Amino acid sequence: MDENGTIVAVATPPGRGALAVIRISGRHAFTAAGECLAERNVFDQAPPRFSRLYHVKSPADRSLLDQVTAVKYAAPRSFTGEDMVEITCHGGPRLVREIVEALLGAGARGAARGEFTRRALLNGKLDLLRAEAIRGIIESESEAALACSRKLFTVAGHRFREWRETLLDISARVEARIEFEDDLDRQAILDERQKIECFFTLLSTDIRKKEKIKFLEKGPVLIIAGPVNAGKSSLFNLLVGFGRSIVHSEPGTTRDMVSETVRIGEHEVKLVDSAGIRESRHEVEREGIGRAREAIGEAAGVLWVTAADENLTAGEIAETGTVGNKILLCIVNKIDRAGGEEKEKAFEGAGFDTISVSMTEKINCEGMLSLLKEKVSELYDKVEIPDLLFNERQEEIGRELCGEIGQALGEWERPEIAAHFLKRAVSCLDEFFGTANPEEVMNRVFENFCIGK
Amino acid sequence: MDENGTIVAVATPPGRGALAVIRISGRHAFTAAGECLAERNVFDQAPPRFSRLYHVKSPADRSLLDQVTAVKYAAPRSFTGEDMVEITCHGGPRLVREIVEALLGAGARGAARGEFTRRALLNGKLDLLRAEAIRGIIESESEAALACSRKLFTVAGHRFREWRETLLDISARVEARIEFEDDLDRQAILDERQKIECFFTLLSTDIRKKEKIKFLEKGPVLIIAGPVNAGKSSLFNLLVGFGRSIVHSEPGTTRDMVSETVRIGEHEVKLVDSAGIRESRHEVEREGIGRAREAIGEAAGVLWVTAADENLTAGEIAETGTVGNKILLCIVNKIDRAGGEEKEKAFEGAGFDTISVSMTEKINCEGMLSLLKEKVSELYDKVEIPDLLFNERQEEIGRELCGEIGQALGEWERPEIAAHFLKRAVSCLDEFFGTANPEEVMNRVFENFCIGK
Repeated sequence: MDENGTIVAVATPPGRGALAVIRISGRHAFTAAGECLAERNVFDQAPPRFSRLYHVKSPADRSLLDQVTAVKYAAPRSFTGEDMVEITCHGGPRLVREIVEALLGAGARGAARGEFTRRALLNGKLDLLRAEAIRGIIESESEAALACSRKLFTVAGHRFREWRETLLDISARVEARIEFEDDLDRQAILDERQKIECFFTLLSTDIRKKEKIKFLEKGPVLIIAGPVNAGKSSLFNLLVGFGRSIVHSEPGTTRDMVSETVRIGEHEVKLVDSAGIRESRHEVEREGIGRAREAIGEAAGVLWVTAADENLTAGEIAETGTVGNKILLCIVNKIDRAGGEEKEKAFEGAGFDTISVSMTEKINCEGMLSLLKEKVSELYDKVEIPDLLFNERQEEIGRELCGEIGQALGEWERPEIAAHFLKRAVSCLDEFFGTANPEEVMNRVFENFCIGK
Repeated sequence: MDENGTIVAVATPPGRGALAVIRISGRHAFTAAGECLAERNVFDQAPPRFSRLYHVKSPADRSLLDQVTAVKYAAPRSFTGEDMVEITCHGGPRLVREIVEALLGAGARGAARGEFTRRALLNGKLDLLRAEAIRGIIESESEAALACSRKLFTVAGHRFREWRETLLDISARVEARIEFEDDLDRQAILDERQKIECFFTLLSTDIRKKEKIKFLEKGPVLIIAGPVNAGKSSLFNLLVGFGRSIVHSEPGTTRDMVSETVRIGEHEVKLVDSAGIRESRHEVEREGIGRAREAIGEAAGVLWVTAADENLTAGEIAETGTVGNKILLCIVNKIDRAGGEEKEKAFEGAGFDTISVSMTEKINCEGMLSLLKEKVSELYDKVEIPDLLFNERQEEIGRELCGEIGQALGEWERPEIAAHFLKRAVSCLDEFFGTANPEEVMNRVFENFCIGK
């Protein structure tokens, strides 16, 4: 791969839309784009950052491909810091590919994942933390995740730089203690220790916060589970508001997990309609059940749906016991067919919030919805956005950093050893910015980027 | 709905990408956008068409939402002919929604389907045929469809205008014949008739061409069909190149139609893995089979997959007979288990191109692929792009127009009647441009547009 080549990629999401944006970056960005435009001279002479209508021509037969607008960004005043062109064309998938192919024919090459951002980084247009923040902003599907990425974008780098200075400073003082052991300022040592302790507490708290928000990163997942034929798909459809899962009278028909992001009150959740959880000798169905159990383990909550006209079985008691800490709400359905008071009592007795409804006869569905809104709000209210650690890479470094600082504190009275751990802590902090192993860290960060970013 | 309001919509496809584009159009486009930007003064003073970096702030709490570029287009030099702003932000679905909400809060309203293009049309920035062409360009999933939309965009309007002039002209001459019956120029009458005949032939040919390309409009669909457990999903996976459909040893497991657009040689086809076609008492499976049969009726071709180690049944003979005209290729699979020569002979005898393979043992798969490439190329080679009629609306008008002209020709010797039909033909031509019933035609065209266009 030519590291310095001129790269091209579609920057907007795949699929159909009114518009799509194609980005070109590198030394030959202007010439590559110019070659594909009928009004080449006009383009060449257009000032940077000026948007104008052009016609894209096929380099092969000069036939018209599309009417587009194009803007030049001259180095270094561009996202990548290189010469860049942004072409905004009509958003037809087939058309977009043809324009990209025309640009490839004009000397550009396809960009690798995150290659635009990588170049921005290499050209000093942003730092690694901000690059990660941009990835986070693009990927955020929940309020919590977006809030994290924004905090990362705006304040995290600054905080880390401050802490690095403090650590370096204290580390130097501790080393000085080794040299001038007789001339100790007790108060200064205490102050330094306090600062380090404060950082240690901050980090430990942040690691816990980061753990807690994990389940919210893609929007909290709520699994609809319960015995066969209790009305799980009906609940799913009710909440989704339109029919995605086939509601069927035959037990065990919902074989695949069907999921949909839905708004419940103020918040969004990813709703998953699980396979009927029961023992089955049918091979395909068993796969589905296995996946459902696995999904429950990773979910933020479970909506347990059960039928009023079916007796509570030992299996169901065992199952709700297993997933008990995940159950947000027990829904006793089909009360148009049987009272269901006993089931309701049993679940309430087990400590679950329980409500009896009939989804087919629309009895108490409103009540169920408002209860559900409350429960989802509670899920969100528990969330605290971390201050320092916003993604897995950072969490991993944070744990390491926390370990080094903990050890430094443990050995505070033995300055040689404490200084050693403090120095290692500074190296950990450097890892946040990728300065320690730039190539390796960058590969790791960018392998998860989308093309065109 | 306020017809003159300032509208906002995401113009790029939904989903995640590096960038997304949000469009605002209307009298208050500049103020609405300005209110959401931290650098409002800079934005107000920026010249039109100049792209600059801004920060989007939440109107509620002035917190930072994103770093964006924004470009103003001043009326009438914009796509809609109104004041417009294009904001290019990071392409995170959650983020994009927040920015749109900020703009809604600043006085814009959500755009209806095709409302941007509708305004462009009302402001004389494009005509109805070009509006349809843009929709076609966005929706095109195949070479043929894209070629149609481009032809529509570039030449169709011009041709129709020419034909309208000719028809009006001839219609006037024919009327003149009524008045001055004694003073007839026989040669002129013959020339006029020839011109009309030429148009009639062109139209009839075009209606036929339009019919033929129908199956190519979304890329030709190829259905993989055949008896249960013959290896249909294996073929699908082989062609798709990665596993989307679960390959399973239990007969009847592929219950849903699974489809994927794949490139076969030079061309793209939409490959559909059908449910096993067989009689079944299982309710869910029967639904799948019904859908498969229906899909075959609409498909461009069928790949019939059968197993070498299963005898040819009367059911299979009947089934291949029914779909015979759609069969592109018969594939006798599993020749690692049995010879399959008899089956191959039987299918070849019935006039089908047949090839024997083993997909699990990779015997003759290369041969199968090259044969398939040939057959798909043949599908495309048969295609001719129409000259005048490019979508259903136009085809419908074209048929009507053809009828009027045919009747005019039939009554050529009775000028009163011929003139009547020629006038009706001119009205038909007006319908192409939507001048006859502007509101009705426009509603029909725009109801299929995407939001943001």
